[in-house]
Order: sequence, then C-alpha cells, then structure tokens
Amino acid sequence: MHELGVVYRNITRADKNAADKLAALGSATVHEAMGRVGLMKPYMRPIYAGAQVSGTAVTVLLHPGDNWMMHVVAEQIQPGDIVVAAISADNCDGFFGDLLATSFMARGARALVIDAGVRDVKTLTDMGFPVWSKGISSKGTIKATLGSVNIPVVCAGMLVNPGDVVVADDDGVVVVPAQAAIKTLEAATAREANEGEKRLKLASGILGLDMYNMREPLAKAGLKYID
Amino acid sequence: MHELGVVYRNITRADKNAADKLAALGSATVHEAMGRVGLMKPYMRPIYAGAQVSGTAVTVLLHPGDNWMMHVVAEQIQPGDIVVAAISADNCDGFFGDLLATSFMARGARALVIDAGVRDVKTLTDMGFPVWSKGISSKGTIKATLGSVNIPVVCAGMLVNPGDVVVADDDGVVVVPAQAAIKTLEAATAREANEGEKRLKLASGILGLDMYNMREPLAKAGLKYID
Amino acid sequence: MHELGVVYRNITRADKNAADKLAALGSATVHEAMGRVGLMKPYMRPIYAGAQVSGTAVTVLLHPGDNWMMHVVAEQIQPGDIVVAAISADNCDGFFGDLLATSFMARGARALVIDAGVRDVKTLTDMGFPVWSKGISSKGTIKATLGSVNIPVVCAGMLVNPGDVVVADDDGVVVVPAQAAIKTLEAATAREANEGEKRLKLASGILGLDMYNMREPLAKAGLKYID
Amino acid sequence: MHELGVVYRNITRADKNAADKLAALGSATVHEAMGRVGLMKPYMRPIYAGAQVSGTAVTVLLHPGDNWMMHVVAEQIQPGDIVVAAISADNCDGFFGDLLATSFMARGARALVIDAGVRDVKTLTDMGFPVWSKGISSKGTIKATLGSVNIPVVCAGMLVNPGDVVVADDDGVVVVPAQAAIKTLEAATAREANEGEKRLKLASGILGLDMYNMREPLAKAGLKYID
Amino acid sequence: MHELGVVYRNITRADKNAADKLAALGSATVHEAMGRVGLMKPYMRPIYAGAQVSGTAVTVLLHPGDNWMMHVVAEQIQPGDIVVAAISADNCDGFFGDLLATSFMARGARALVIDAGVRDVKTLTDMGFPVWSKGISSKGTIKATLGSVNIPVVCAGMLVNPGDVVVADDDGVVVVPAQAAIKTLEAATAREANEGEKRLKLASGILGLDMYNMREPLAKAGLKYID
Amino acid sequence: MHELGVVYRNITRADKNAADKLAALGSATVHEAMGRVGLMKPYMRPIYAGAQVSGTAVTVLLHPGDNWMMHVVAEQIQPGDIVVAAISADNCDGFFGDLLATSFMARGARALVIDAGVRDVKTLTDMGFPVWSKGISSKGTIKATLGSVNIPVVCAGMLVNPGDVVVADDDGVVVVPAQAAIKTLEAATAREANEGEKRLKLASGILGLDMYNMREPLAKAGLKYID
Repeated sequence: MHELGVVYRNITRADKNAADKLAALGSATVHEAMGRVGLMKPYMRPIYAGAQVSGTAVTVLLHPGDNWMMHVVAEQIQPGDIVVAAISADNCDGFFGDLLATSFMARGARALVIDAGVRDVKTLTDMGFPVWSKGISSKGTIKATLGSVNIPVVCAGMLVNPGDVVVADDDGVVVVPAQAAIKTLEAATAREANEGEKRLKLASGILGLDMYNMREPLAKAGLKYID
Repeated sequence: MHELGVVYRNITRADKNAADKLAALGSATVHEAMGRVGLMKPYMRPIYAGAQVSGTAVTVLLHPGDNWMMHVVAEQIQPGDIVVAAISADNCDGFFGDLLATSFMARGARALVIDAGVRDVKTLTDMGFPVWSKGISSKGTIKATLGSVNIPVVCAGMLVNPGDVVVADDDGVVVVPAQAAIKTLEAATAREANEGEKRLKLASGILGLDMYNMREPLAKAGLKYID
Repeated sequence: MHELGVVYRNITRADKNAADKLAALGSATVHEAMGRVGLMKPYMRPIYAGAQVSGTAVTVLLHPGDNWMMHVVAEQIQPGDIVVAAISADNCDGFFGDLLATSFMARGARALVIDAGVRDVKTLTDMGFPVWSKGISSKGTIKATLGSVNIPVVCAGMLVNPGDVVVADDDGVVVVPAQAAIKTLEAATAREANEGEKRLKLASGILGLDMYNMREPLAKAGLKYID
Repeated sequence: MHELGVVYRNITRADKNAADKLAALGSATVHEAMGRVGLMKPYMRPIYAGAQVSGTAVTVLLHPGDNWMMHVVAEQIQPGDIVVAAISADNCDGFFGDLLATSFMARGARALVIDAGVRDVKTLTDMGFPVWSKGISSKGTIKATLGSVNIPVVCAGMLVNPGDVVVADDDGVVVVPAQAAIKTLEAATAREANEGEKRLKLASGILGLDMYNMREPLAKAGLKYID
Repeated sequence: MHELGVVYRNITRADKNAADKLAALGSATVHEAMGRVGLMKPYMRPIYAGAQVSGTAVTVLLHPGDNWMMHVVAEQIQPGDIVVAAISADNCDGFFGDLLATSFMARGARALVIDAGVRDVKTLTDMGFPVWSKGISSKGTIKATLGSVNIPVVCAGMLVNPGDVVVADDDGVVVVPAQAAIKTLEAATAREANEGEKRLKLASGILGLDMYNMREPLAKAGLKYID
Repeated sequence: MHELGVVYRNITRADKNAADKLAALGSATVHEAMGRVGLMKPYMRPIYAGAQVSGTAVTVLLHPGDNWMMHVVAEQIQPGDIVVAAISADNCDGFFGDLLATSFMARGARALVIDAGVRDVKTLTDMGFPVWSKGISSKGTIKATLGSVNIPVVCAGMLVNPGDVVVADDDGVVVVPAQAAIKTLEAATAREANEGEKRLKLASGILGLDMYNMREPLAKAGLKYID
C-alpha cells in the first residue's frame, strides 16, 4: 500500500460476468452475501439518486488538493471499470468535474467512487455519470504531486485491490474481492431468490417473529411481555 | 428509561383526531405551537423529500448493530402508529429495509423514525414508506441482544413516550406529548390561520418591521442606522 | 467586523452586469477564474437541486437562536440582491421560513445564503426561492438581540463585504469581491470558452495526459509504469 | 419535558448514601451494574483529568446562547447536588465560568454536567470545581429567555429526572434513576468485589478465554484456528 | 482577501502596550469587553494546557497539504508577534513542527494559531512554544504552491487582519482589531476590576439572582415557582 | 480482508530490532521516511500524553458493541506486540478496560491501537498501558459475534497486516509494512541525524528560506514582496 509514483498497467480483473451482474442485486444484498463485510463508510453518497452500478476497480491514490493522477488513471480505464480514488489525508476539494467525466466515459468507465469531493454535479447528473463521494465542492485542485495507480488503496475505510468488484447504489458502496466475485454472485442471487416469498408473507400480515421462528429464542433470552 | 427485555403491550395513545390532523400543520408550526420545544436533532432527515406524516409513537430501544427488537415492535404496531427507534449508543448501521417495511405497512404503520441507519432506500421510496433517519447504510445487523418495546426512549435527543404524537416532514421530526396533543392541535391551527393574512401583507411589500411593530423595540435596544 | 447594532443603508454594489452574468458560469468556473479562492465551506448546500444564481450581497450578522435582524435586513434588500447571513456562533436553528421568504421576494431578493438552518423547505421549494444553508431545522428563533446589517461578515469561512457578488449553484457558494467582479466575469468567460473544445477532444477519446502535455512533467517527477 | 418558565422547588432526591457512594465505583462499573444503560454520549468530557464524583441532579433547561436560568438553578442547589444543564438546541457557547462556579460551590454543588460549552477552565481547574461538557468556549451568553429548573431533561442523549444520581469520571457521565440508586449501588459493589480476584488471575497470565470459559462457546460459534 | 503569491512586508501593528497586556485578561474577558465578538471557532485548542498569550498577528494563507509559505512568513515575524495561519480548504495535516518552531522562536514569535494540524507536540511542549490548532497530525506537507503573507485571512471562522491583536488561552482564541486594541484593554481591565468583588459576594452565598437584581425581570418574563 | 471467524496463529513479525528502535524516532519522522504514507487518521489520540512506543502488530477485527474477540486476540500476543483493533462499522463503545489491559500486559503487549472507544482510562494511565483510540466511553460491550484475529484490517483508514510495525506517540499512529521496517529505520535514522544541525542553524536565526534555498524557487513561482 505504500508505493508512490507507480502505475501498474496490468491488473487482473474479476470475472466479467460476476462484475456485471452484481449491480442488479444491490449493495445491501451483496454485503450480506459476503458475510456482512466489504462496505465503505456510509458517508459515501451518490451525487444523484437512483444509479445502481457494478464494475471492476481501477484504483488511484491522490494527495489532498491535487488531482494530477486522475489524468493518469484515465488511461488505465477499460470498458466496465469503476475508478476508485483514495486520498492520503482527509480532504473534500472537488477533484473531478465534467471534463474528466467526459474522458472517463469515453474510456468506458461506469462510475467514480472517490473519498473526497467532486464538482459540476448538475452536469454530471445530466450526463448520467454516477459518482459516489464524500462531498461536493467547487474547489479546484492543483497538479503537482505523484500518487499511484492500480495499487491497493483504502477508500472510505475499505481496502480495494485493483480488479475487485465495486457495487454501488443509493444504499452505499460495497467492495467484493476479485477472487470472491463468482461465489458472492451465487450467494447474493440465492439470497435474493428467497426474498420474494418472504415479502409476500410479510405483506399478508405474517410477522417476522413467526416467519423466522424468533419467539422461542426471544423468550429464552428473557424477553417479557407486560399487559 | 432503564428497563431491558420488556415489551409493554398496552399503551395509551394520544387522541386519534389530533394525532391524525397534526401532519397537515407541519413540524415547524407544531414546534412553535408547543412553545418551541419537542424537536429532534436536525440530523434526522427523510430518505425522500415531500413526505409529511403524523401518528402515535410505538417505541423501541435497540443496541448497536442489532435489529432483533424491530421484529418484536412490529407486532405492537396498530394502524396510525409511527415506530420510533432509539439506539443505546451511536451507530449508523442499516437496521431497517424493504422486508421490515413490508411488515410495518401490513400492520398499518405510517412511518419509521430511527436514530440510526436504514437501507433499501430506493425500494422504500417506491413503496412510499417514509423514514426519518440519521443515515443510510447497506450494513446489516445481527439478532442477539434484547432491547425493549414501548418504554420511554430518547431518540435523536428528544424524549418519546409510547403514545406520544410524532409529526415529521422535510423540516424535521417533532414529538408532542400525548396529553398535550389536543391543545397543541388547537394552538397550531390558530397559528396557521394567522399566517395566510401575514403572507399576503408581506407579499404586497409590507415589511415585517412594520407588520410586527419592531421599529420601536429595535430603536430602544439601540439599533442605529448609518447613511 | 466588530460593530454591533448598526445598519448601513448605503452600500456600494458590484457592477450590475457582472453580478447578473456570473450565475451562468457557475461557482466552479468562477472559483477557478479568481485563482481558486472565494469558496465558502462545502457544508453549505442548496435546499433543492438545480438553482443557479448570482447577485449582490447584503449582509447580516445574527446571534444563535435569534432572527430579529432578518427583518431589519429585509428593508435593505434591493432587486438583484442575495442576503448573506452569518451567525456569531455555530447554530443550526431555523432562522428563515416561508414568511420571510415572501418578504424577501417582494423586495427583489434572489436567494438567501445562511450559515445556519432554515425551515419550511417544501414551501420554499414550491415558491422557487433558493437557499444555501448549513442545515434544515424546524426550530424557531427568538427576537431579542441586536446584530448588524451590511457590515463585513464571515459566512461559512469566507469574508463577505456588502456589495460583493455571490455565485451559488449545486456545487457551492463563491464570493467575488465587488472590485473584482468585472475582471472575474472576463476571466471566467474566457475559461468557459475553452471548455467546449476540450470536452469534444476528451469525448473523442483523446486523453488529458496528451491534451495537457502531462506525460513529460509526470516522467520528470518520477512516475514509473510497470507492466 | 415540555414546560417552560417553571421552577420546581421541591424534588425528591435519591438516597443520600447511595448518591455519595456511587462515585467510588466509577461510571463504567455503574453503567454495567445497571444493565449497560444510562450513559450520556461520550462527547461529554471532563475539563480536567482525574475528577470522580457522584451526587443528586438538579436540572436546568437552557436555550442556545442564553444562560439566564443558570442563576435560577443556583438557588435550588443543595449540598451534594450536581447541576445537569440541557440546551434546547445544539450550542457550544460558554454558559458557565468562574463566577457561577463560585456561587455553585458556595451552595454545595459538587459538579456541573452541561451539554454545551464552558469557559474559565484554567480557573475552574485551580478551584477544583469539575465540569463535564461538550466543549470549551470563551463565548459569553445573554440573559433573555426563560427555561425551566428541575423538570426532566435530555442531556447529551440521556433522560435525567431531578433527584437522579449522576456519576461522572474520566470515562464519562452515567445517570442512575433515583429509585434505582440503592439497588445499583449494591450491584456495582458486588461487581467491583469480583474484579480484584479476576485482576490477579489475569496478571498471573491466565487468559480471559479460560477464566470466563469462552473456548467452548467460541468453538460452537464456529471459530477456527489456522496454523 | 483574494490575492495570492503576495507578501506584505510593512504592516501596522496594534499598540504594543495593549497587545502585551491583553494576555493577562484572558480570552473570555476580552471577548466580553469587545461586545461578545471576535472569537475563533471553539475547535481551536491549545496543544498543552496553561499557556496564555497575546501579541500582534502576522498572517499567512496556506493551501491544503502545503506548508511552503510557513517559511516565508517566518521572515516577517517581529518580536511579540503571533503567527496566524489560515488554509484555503479544510485540512488537518501537520503543517508545523519543532524545526519551524525553533525558527519562529528565534524570530521572537510568541505562538502559532493555525486552522489545521501540527506535529512534534511533545517537543513543542518541552520548548514551551504554544500552538492553538484544529488538530494534531504526523502527516507532513509539501512545498509546491504559493499562498500569501500579511493579507487579511479568515482563520477558524474569524477575520484576522495583519497587526490585529490575538489573545489565546485555555478557553480559546480571540481577535482584537488593531484600532480597537487600546479601547478593548480599557474595557477588559474595567470588567476584570469588577469581578473580584462579585466573586467575594458569590463565595459568601449571595446569589446572582440578588446581586444582579434578576428576580424582577424573571418574574416579568413569567417565571413561576412551584412547590 | 473478508474472512470471519478465523484466528491465524502463525504470523511473520517484522524484524525485531527495527520494530523496537522505530519508537525513538517518532511517528512524524517515520511517516516522512516512508514517503509520507502510513498514517492512521488523526482522530486517533493517546489516552494520556507522553507515551511513545513501537512494536509488531497483532490484529483483530471486531463488530460494533462486541468485544468477544479481544479475549481471543490476547492469546496471540507475544512480548513486543501492539494489538491493533479494527471495527466493522463506526462505533465508540468502550471495548477495553483495566482487566483486559492486565491480561495484555501479562502477555507482553506494549500498547493497544483501537478504532473505537476504551474505558477505565484513569487506571490504564496509572498502569502505564498506553492506548490510542477514537474515543473514551464507559459503555460496555457484549460477547456474541465472531470476528477474526491476525487478518489484514483497516484501522482508522490505514491497512494493517499482522506483523507490521506500529509506531505511536503524541502525534499519531503510523504503520510500517513488515518488509519495509529495516529500510524505514535506516531512512528515519538518517533523517533524524540531519535534524540536529538544522535545529542549531534555525535557532541561531538563519531562516528556512535560506537554509533550504527556497528564495529562488519562490521567486520563480511568482512570489512578490510589497513594501
């Protein structure tokens, strides 16, 4: 995690089918399917509601107030990728706007996930380029310091290796390690399959207490009802 | 406030007419009508804009990362209720999603107010089930620890007794003690009646300075105009 | 900055043409055109998405929980002004709602920028009166303490002199000193003119690395590519 | 919780012996003895390290930036009391300094717990008057608005009724309901008695895994050791 | 406030006698004496307790993660000055450590006030060089971007002009405009003179209610006592 | 990073000599020697001032409000280790107190670094067991959920692999990857050697501007002096 000024051009991306299909399952189901791990901090919010994407991570480590490496990472994007940008210290400047988004889209990027700020959010919304970020800020950045591209980074509290799958929607951003992508897709799909039936039961008025057989363990734990 | 593992089945709900009608007046007017008290911390935000509800509180005390009691409180919901969930320590996990919402709606709940996180917000929005929460998070929770249901709780800095009226809209969440519900409805209605006339005057260009007779007290307080 | 209880009636507003036209360029471009200064803290957010305004500042200094001076500043508003409200200590009460907005609009105000909370946000949205604020809160305020009007204030970390131009959109709020308004309009317009061409190039797949001739300085700085 | 402008002169204080002796057990042990409830938010910090107190609560509800009621509550202090001050909205002004501390000490107060700011902390430290607060601030306050004294208040997220026992030390502030004071003292004392023996065992190198018989439940829960 | 890359070598410092003597009065008294204005945000904390200083401000505007201008401002320090460092965007890196402190002390600086982070705090404490900062961080900074020296800056929410008096102690940091220094010293001294007598009265058990004649205005405002 | 319920018993610890000697260099120097990376978020603060340690990391991943795995990790401690505890979601409960500290010390642990809260800080201070944490809280935890021991974790924003070197002092906490420990010790030692001479020069009044030959690059960057 500690190299600086290095760009790895060859990374091993997760299975493409899994990387594409995880989006439909959503971050909450994927997070559960992995055993309740992999979620970035919940301060990561979409700049507009409703986007739901998944893709393979290309990573970039930036420094506060300096977006030079965003141009370097652009070249490493392949169709289906999501750029994951980490910053070496807390900073909410606007590292990314409509021009970079135009370039990222031209390269086939599906989204940006950045532990900092972005700007031009109205234009980005019109362009349909989704971004999950820590904040929104007009403040521009300089181009003076080297970071690195496609090294493991910690973004919003979560380790992201280049090639991992990123799943992002209105609930947050989840990272699936590349080697776990297929298994996670299976587990999440199975989980999802279950939910339709549960939803029908609950809608009919059946309680979770009964559907999940919770009354006995609750009583055992000592729950008392008082009239 | 300090019992654990207890569910009170019989609570005294506020006057139903007042509990229903306070929604239309809105949280700001109700808060003023109570003498400027009763507001939860402003970090409580709706998951979608535009919802405006009121109803009687059923309360639940949860522990960090554990939503077991959400299933217990579901059974205590009656039509017209709003579930108020407090957590015994700061935590932003996603305690609530579309399955629980389906169950709550089937029981007649109008909304959830929770001093923690929720998930499946896109589905909740589509379902039209409003939630006011501290945050949004994909992170799921376990089912291991007892809390309590229908005890007095502190939610987002405000004491809520079971049966109190909760009024929530885009401006925030206000709690009206059950015994004050009717009086508050009257005071808020009177206040509201006044506002139409004031609005017309202000729209015509009359200043608040004149409409409220502020010039004299301002001068007395020492306000000086400099040309 | 330290007078209290004073209202300056005559202020020198920035060039009207510049104050009107800066809106179209947006806060990010204006901020860059000024040499990357002038931005308020990014916690200042619009109460609804999509508003984009500019205008001349009339300023007001308020005290926590006290909006008396909002009525005093209303009288000083001229068409094309934006009210900038600073608070003498951190406070998120709702200092402003639909009645004051009616009055401000009747006076010709284009927006409010306030380092505190506002309420009635649904009505304000319906009225189309944009507000940039630190938060939203139903909590009302009292009318007991003098502040000042049209003195220099620090709002959300930025000095604002009465008559300065304020530019606000979804990316944030930028302050342009009155004497720099014309020059900033020219610089921002020139900057904007450039962007169309750049956007076309980037959309065609040309990289920023090449368009901005970054490869050489990156190599000089020591960037290494590893296959 | 919603009366304003009222001072209750007669309150029922918790058992004096319990109120006095709980200090020695400390906030962590007392919190455990109550079943892990009663703790104020951990942002409440002592202005100096090492103070450890308990006493009966006299409560006061203040408004942002206004300390008028601190003088009203002073008269209600009896020897052995701790003043608990809640604010009707988040505010960090300095509501309390050395003059008020002099008056509180003269009345027999043992400490102040305030969900806001204080000042003169160097002098307060020299005087040995402990304060737990949300912050420190030179900012003074006005005297314009009524609050109430000896009503139930929510302070730093915890309900405090007048007469409850407050236990505060370097770990935080815990509230013991008056009617639970004696039982809590017994439970906490029993808990404490246990700890000496445990400490000796752990110091000798015996592991908690063995002392608490955790190996079996851990294995049952599925814990795997990998060499 | 918006020039970059400029160093003003000649600034008008406040009256030396006032700048020296305000320290003894403390930030709270000075803040009151100015009419309750001038205080920086209370997140500004001393790196060690007990320091109490005043002096004339030399100012510097820095960029996130870049402390180049700290070396430029060092040259502008005269004995009795306090360096006030503002940052163009929120950033908590360690801009200052023992080497710079050695240089500042050699130039006669009395303290640093910085709206960012510092490091080497143990050594700074041993050296007796007081710093008020937003945080502490080992993170070093680069030297790549120009800021300015001795321009007006906003530091922790407060406007500071070069030459203003800065008063800092355990309660916070107050800024006295240069032209108000003498008058503020007089007002603060008068205020202080009053306090001794008040303290004696309060210590003897006389209540603020009586000493300040508050009973009547409280009754007028509607305060009710209930037995 | 995503395994749960696993304890790795055999980890490769960094070179012991380097792990021991890095403490004396301090977190700031070590952070610089690594190329300005490796620092945990600056919200990690020591519970008492003055401790300065280094050692090899044994890691533990915990869940909010559950410290069961702290007993599991205790068994894996070897003399010279520092326990690094990460939590799967933000939580400030008191996961650690004097009993666990007694056990950790008996095993030879030098410190705890935990991205959550601790309690019994007065006793921990008396015992001389240093802790760097996100907060202090009396709130106890349950023992219900499996985490893992000696897996890679993200603690306060930084990746920590078991066996890495942790360096912690009043300035913060730095992580040195095991394989970089020796090289970092050399680089930090060299850096330190330089500092004595620099300090003497600066103390004699020589400016950093001259000592570091900054005048020319500053002029080139466009810095202007105005008299």
